[in-house]
Amino acid sequence: MKKREFLKLAGLGGIGLAGTEKVSAKSGHPNIPTVGKQVFNMSGYAAPKIDTVRIGYIGLGNRGGGAIKRIVNLENVQVKAISDIVQEKADSAKKQLEAAGHHPEVYSGSKDAWKKLCERDDLDLIYICTPWNLHTPMAVYAMEHGKHAVTEIPAATTVSDCWKLVETSERTTKHCMMLENCCYDFFELLTLNMARQGYFGEIVHVEGAYIHDIFDSLFEKDKRFDLWRLRENQRNGNLYPTHGLGPIAQILDINRGDKMDYLVSMSSNDFMIQNKINQLAATDPDFKQFVGKSFRGNMNTTTIKTSKGRTIMLQHDVSSPRPYSRLHLISGTKGAAQKYPLPEDGTEGRISHGHEWVSTAEFKELEKKYQPEIVKRIGELAKKVGGHGGMDFLMDWRLIDCLRNGLPLDQDVYDAASWSVISSLSEWSVANKSNSIEVPDFTNGAWKKNKPVDIALKEGGNTGVKS
Amino acid sequence: MKKREFLKLAGLGGIGLAGTEKVSAKSGHPNIPTVGKQVFNMSGYAAPKIDTVRIGYIGLGNRGGGAIKRIVNLENVQVKAISDIVQEKADSAKKQLEAAGHHPEVYSGSKDAWKKLCERDDLDLIYICTPWNLHTPMAVYAMEHGKHAVTEIPAATTVSDCWKLVETSERTTKHCMMLENCCYDFFELLTLNMARQGYFGEIVHVEGAYIHDIFDSLFEKDKRFDLWRLRENQRNGNLYPTHGLGPIAQILDINRGDKMDYLVSMSSNDFMIQNKINQLAATDPDFKQFVGKSFRGNMNTTTIKTSKGRTIMLQHDVSSPRPYSRLHLISGTKGAAQKYPLPEDGTEGRISHGHEWVSTAEFKELEKKYQPEIVKRIGELAKKVGGHGGMDFLMDWRLIDCLRNGLPLDQDVYDAASWSVISSLSEWSVANKSNSIEVPDFTNGAWKKNKPVDIALKEGGNTGVKS
Repeated sequence: MKKREFLKLAGLGGIGLAGTEKVSAKSGHPNIPTVGKQVFNMSGYAAPKIDTVRIGYIGLGNRGGGAIKRIVNLENVQVKAISDIVQEKADSAKKQLEAAGHHPEVYSGSKDAWKKLCERDDLDLIYICTPWNLHTPMAVYAMEHGKHAVTEIPAATTVSDCWKLVETSERTTKHCMMLENCCYDFFELLTLNMARQGYFGEIVHVEGAYIHDIFDSLFEKDKRFDLWRLRENQRNGNLYPTHGLGPIAQILDINRGDKMDYLVSMSSNDFMIQNKINQLAATDPDFKQFVGKSFRGNMNTTTIKTSKGRTIMLQHDVSSPRPYSRLHLISGTKGAAQKYPLPEDGTEGRISHGHEWVSTAEFKELEKKYQPEIVKRIGELAKKVGGHGGMDFLMDWRLIDCLRNGLPLDQDVYDAASWSVISSLSEWSVANKSNSIEVPDFTNGAWKKNKPVDIALKEGGNTGVKS
Repeated sequence: MKKREFLKLAGLGGIGLAGTEKVSAKSGHPNIPTVGKQVFNMSGYAAPKIDTVRIGYIGLGNRGGGAIKRIVNLENVQVKAISDIVQEKADSAKKQLEAAGHHPEVYSGSKDAWKKLCERDDLDLIYICTPWNLHTPMAVYAMEHGKHAVTEIPAATTVSDCWKLVETSERTTKHCMMLENCCYDFFELLTLNMARQGYFGEIVHVEGAYIHDIFDSLFEKDKRFDLWRLRENQRNGNLYPTHGLGPIAQILDINRGDKMDYLVSMSSNDFMIQNKINQLAATDPDFKQFVGKSFRGNMNTTTIKTSKGRTIMLQHDVSSPRPYSRLHLISGTKGAAQKYPLPEDGTEGRISHGHEWVSTAEFKELEKKYQPEIVKRIGELAKKVGGHGGMDFLMDWRLIDCLRNGLPLDQDVYDAASWSVISSLSEWSVANKSNSIEVPDFTNGAWKKNKPVDIALKEGGNTGVKS
């Protein structure tokens, strides 16, 4: 059998995905290359303390607009610069921030305005809320200019960009955190703590999902700059894995005792997007460019095997008319937990240590018993401030508190890379008859000794909140 | 690259699975061979009418014992012969049947006693409820001796046995039906009818599962002849796919308009069975033979792509302490349905045509509006007779009614083969790093024109029930 034939069979004909092309180019087989020796281990890295965290925001749309509303509730922070390519969004953000006692300089008017923001010498943290494909270049540029970088999800959309984040963070010893807010949702934090306390026994299998009918938002010309969301949906795979994966990856101690080994991914055909494009293009010339293009299969299911032999099932569907489900399931040798469908009794989820889900009363006892420290301290306030029910504020508070106290961040660059890379790998698998592909070890072996995320708040916790 | 290397890479080193070894031997690649031209199309086949159905039962344990309790409620049937290798089980069944006016001859005392039963010339139907590995040889022997055969699930445990069932049924023009009772559960029938009426629009994705903590039953020496269930669990894959797959395969019209194209399967490691063996072997010599043997990974997730581009997600876990879940999910372009976790309002499941599950009241309206004919006629009675809440009786009534009226059976030999073969294919995929493997087309192309299952009871329905 000729090598060319085998490569064709293995699906390495090059399928037009920057990141995954690199994969095959580097390896000649659908295995991911691991880079050389780790330059510096950013897992557990404690950066110098910062008493007052000086922040610059890039992207003030849907997510960035929410971020500035939350940050003004924290003491010990200064928003000194903000940037958006749309002048009006920047100006309106400036007004809100000034009303709260911040005096940010505005960067707008050109596609590169954000670079000037990163180049300032009086910022500690760059907070990135732009379209997906800009997350990596902006985070890298920020780190290169001596700033810690946090970015909205996904941190990267190609395998090579994931490596770029890792290499840059290690070389500059700057934090690169992905803002995976779902790691701070209440049931997710509760089950993380229960897992740590051994409630589920040995964990065998976990599940996560992002099933959310945001179909119409793909086509919003005014709200999505240059229809970026629709463009991203021309990639076929699980494009948005981290909401589901983040919390269960923490429960499995991925990159900190276990690692993702390989995955397989399968997508249905597209039964909805192309039809909608054809309808729209009939009356709106802006959509003509998408006619005849192919789009993401509506439903994607990806399964991942870990080095310790546990399995992860991940799903993605943002076009079908289904009730919202950010499935969060833990199955262990002693117990199980599941969120979604939400229980009718108003509790956050279901817990079991046998053949039945526990009663509402027992759930509430367990909730009290296993409440993580961060929720005890900030939970009620977070619910008042809001942001997806409070988890966004918990995330911001914890981020700032870690920076101020020189503590490792809950999510490091290896998490950002390994959670985000699933989208590119799922694209490869989907394009290759769902065959399996290895997940790169961005920690280069350090996962065996890296310490789990601290959820006990043994240190810090002294960041003030405005009353 | 040498062919030998490629075969090794493709995992065709032969992994000791009778069925799947044949696969690679026949094809030299993890694709399944299709046999030659179809001898006779058993899909939609109407056998000659049988006024009174004369039945012989093989296997009178857990499932067979239940089957004879149900059959005595039907008129127009005669149980003329019963067989079990355990004399006491046969005798106790005989007593029960005689009390109900049947006079069966008993076949026992030897491993081959059942053959004599099949060889009688006064039986129309052989009803097989024995351990898994005996289903195919018994069904084949029954058909070879001119009887229709129905068998408990799975109909076969190897790919070659699946082909044997198809070849025998086509050559003898005898029905070979697998007793997939879950196709007759109430929510499953309701959603099948809703799908037919277009409620879900185009169906994009479906899910099924068998998640049932029957861990202890693997080790029951007295109840499981020769510990057969434990022996089966040395195979690693989804060993019991048909409860979840049957109902959703009918909804997708698999083998009748669509077909399963390829699958990928992933198992967790075994975190429970081997530990239990070691405990038991310490005090019970019968378990010593299993020490050091490897067992099924506790959790298996399998995803299947159909020729029309729909996806199926199937799960299997019979060892973890989790609440029962026979997940039944349908996701379409207009609506969705989900059973498990069961709703707290006592309804059979959840239905949606948008962002929320419908209210209890609306669910009950939909249930009334889309109630299938078979449930209207026999539903209440079936619930009285019981058998997993009534579905077992619905299945038996429908089977006998089809035979008496010369109607095609709801489940034909192609369903038996294609639903059962998933276990062997999942074994292959699990053993080959979850790479994809094609699902054989047991209909040899006839799926394109085969007619869907009739659930409207346009004909028949005249089989009597004793009051």
